[in-house]
Amino acid sequence: MDKLDVSTYFKDIQQRIVFGLEELDGFGEFETDTWKRDGGGGGITRIIQDGAIFEKGGVNFSEVEGAAPPELMKTLEFDSHDAAQVSFYATGVSIVMHPINPMVPIIHMNVRYFELRKIQDAKQVVIANWFGGGIDLTPHYLCKDDAALFHAALKNACDTHDSSYYPKFKDWADNYFYIKHRNETRGIGGVFFDRLSPTDDQSFLDLFSFVKSIGECFLPTYSRIVQRKKELPYTDVETKWQNIRRGRYVEFNLVYDRGTTFGLQTNGRTESILMSLPKNASWFYDFTPDVGSEEENTVNSLQKGIDWITHQSS
Amino acid sequence: MDKLDVSTYFKDIQQRIVFGLEELDGFGEFETDTWKRDGGGGGITRIIQDGAIFEKGGVNFSEVEGAAPPELMKTLEFDSHDAAQVSFYATGVSIVMHPINPMVPIIHMNVRYFELRKIQDAKQVVIANWFGGGIDLTPHYLCKDDAALFHAALKNACDTHDSSYYPKFKDWADNYFYIKHRNETRGIGGVFFDRLSPTDDQSFLDLFSFVKSIGECFLPTYSRIVQRKKELPYTDVETKWQNIRRGRYVEFNLVYDRGTTFGLQTNGRTESILMSLPKNASWFYDFTPDVGSEEENTVNSLQKGIDWITHQSS
Repeated sequence: MDKLDVSTYFKDIQQRIVFGLEELDGFGEFETDTWKRDGGGGGITRIIQDGAIFEKGGVNFSEVEGAAPPELMKTLEFDSHDAAQVSFYATGVSIVMHPINPMVPIIHMNVRYFELRKIQDAKQVVIANWFGGGIDLTPHYLCKDDAALFHAALKNACDTHDSSYYPKFKDWADNYFYIKHRNETRGIGGVFFDRLSPTDDQSFLDLFSFVKSIGECFLPTYSRIVQRKKELPYTDVETKWQNIRRGRYVEFNLVYDRGTTFGLQTNGRTESILMSLPKNASWFYDFTPDVGSEEENTVNSLQKGIDWITHQSS
Repeated sequence: MDKLDVSTYFKDIQQRIVFGLEELDGFGEFETDTWKRDGGGGGITRIIQDGAIFEKGGVNFSEVEGAAPPELMKTLEFDSHDAAQVSFYATGVSIVMHPINPMVPIIHMNVRYFELRKIQDAKQVVIANWFGGGIDLTPHYLCKDDAALFHAALKNACDTHDSSYYPKFKDWADNYFYIKHRNETRGIGGVFFDRLSPTDDQSFLDLFSFVKSIGECFLPTYSRIVQRKKELPYTDVETKWQNIRRGRYVEFNLVYDRGTTFGLQTNGRTESILMSLPKNASWFYDFTPDVGSEEENTVNSLQKGIDWITHQSS
């Protein structure tokens, strides 16, 4: 088991998720952009636009390597004086789907694997490696049943590996997918984890197997939520609100999301990184939803520490 | 002459620009939000939405003071161990106008004055003070005549004070209003300057007078450009392109603009800070304008080092 198995799995799940989402959409097809990175590696960007269900979305695979950029070493808090001799390897799958119908939530998933390597005795040696990932759901209109279904699926995926994972990674998601300047979470959260390195207790294989469980959660869970909501009627009022919520999504991704900000700073492939942005987003000055409305109810629920499975605040 | 004169002038020019823009719009009116800052000071946010010419815009005044936040001292590169005893004072006017007609350019202006103060012998002493500001024009469709008019007005305003200002501050704007991950400038630039502190050669009054000249440039210059363009016909094609360009404006403001990112990090008033974002913005995956189109011509012109007065690249 090594990085080749990881990237092979990531490429495979990208393919399967693309097929699954095309089937779900029933009309739109993902286009394919294969790209190379200056300095090593590349990726396969799969984009759907103007489908029957999905207005815009991407399912991206990447596998890049090369000399470790100084910004990277700084971000990782490794000694910068080592940077010259250190190379990195990173592979991952990133997904963001923006539906047309405001009753269908936005979803995001990322699974990734990272290695830092050094030449020792004329051989490349891995000096650090870890898995990371996350999945979170962003409803324009809160649906408690969907939230419970989504979190129960993630808890189930976590619990088969380690019962400490779900509570820990659910809190991490609450804190990560948080728009500080709005004092609200991006959506109803999910799980987020990073720097899961092999230890005596948890082997590379254990961690890889956990990341696979998260990856495999995506399609059945999101498909079920989309199926439940895709026929619901809506008007311009709900679409306006959807665009405001998408504005918040843009704010999170451009201001806080580490993958996005790091990618833009280090000459990542801009169009692949910014596939996460919606086709349309709106900003109205100081927009406040009506008291007692579904819009207000949704915003009031965008807080950390809610147990979405039983729907109780901690 | 002191900070009171500066804030009095800033409040006055805010008022005059609001009146001027209302007259120009002929229909829309600016609403007023007066706010207080926890810790000291506040501001007057003036917002126009759904006017005849302006879809969304703001002309904001602020005057804030208090203990210097650690992030501020870090940004300013002052010794952090001093932060506990240092207080700050900042006042400024910020403007962003997003027109409805894609043929009318977006404009931005900011003028500001800043003081750092310390208690010495039971008296507040100013330990550093400076002016800053900038003004830049972002056409959705490039018009060389407007660009020449705009830059000539700025050069004229600069030249009455110091003939080194325009070339220096024009370059600064090229570098500041730059979207690195797109390899393009936000628009056709203008001037940008910061940390203009009084010296033996340039008194507080000299600098204040220069900042006034920049401030006074705004209304006549932008009004003339708006008048020239406001009746031009357009279709959904141009509006689509406008929304894509507005997407770039959002990218610049959320990823790079120091006022915005600093404001969001330090619990500034979010709605006042983000008044700069357009009502609508769009992102299409890998959108490329047609060869030889006005859209392509505009994007190709979004580069540093163009002499917009004679329209030559340096």
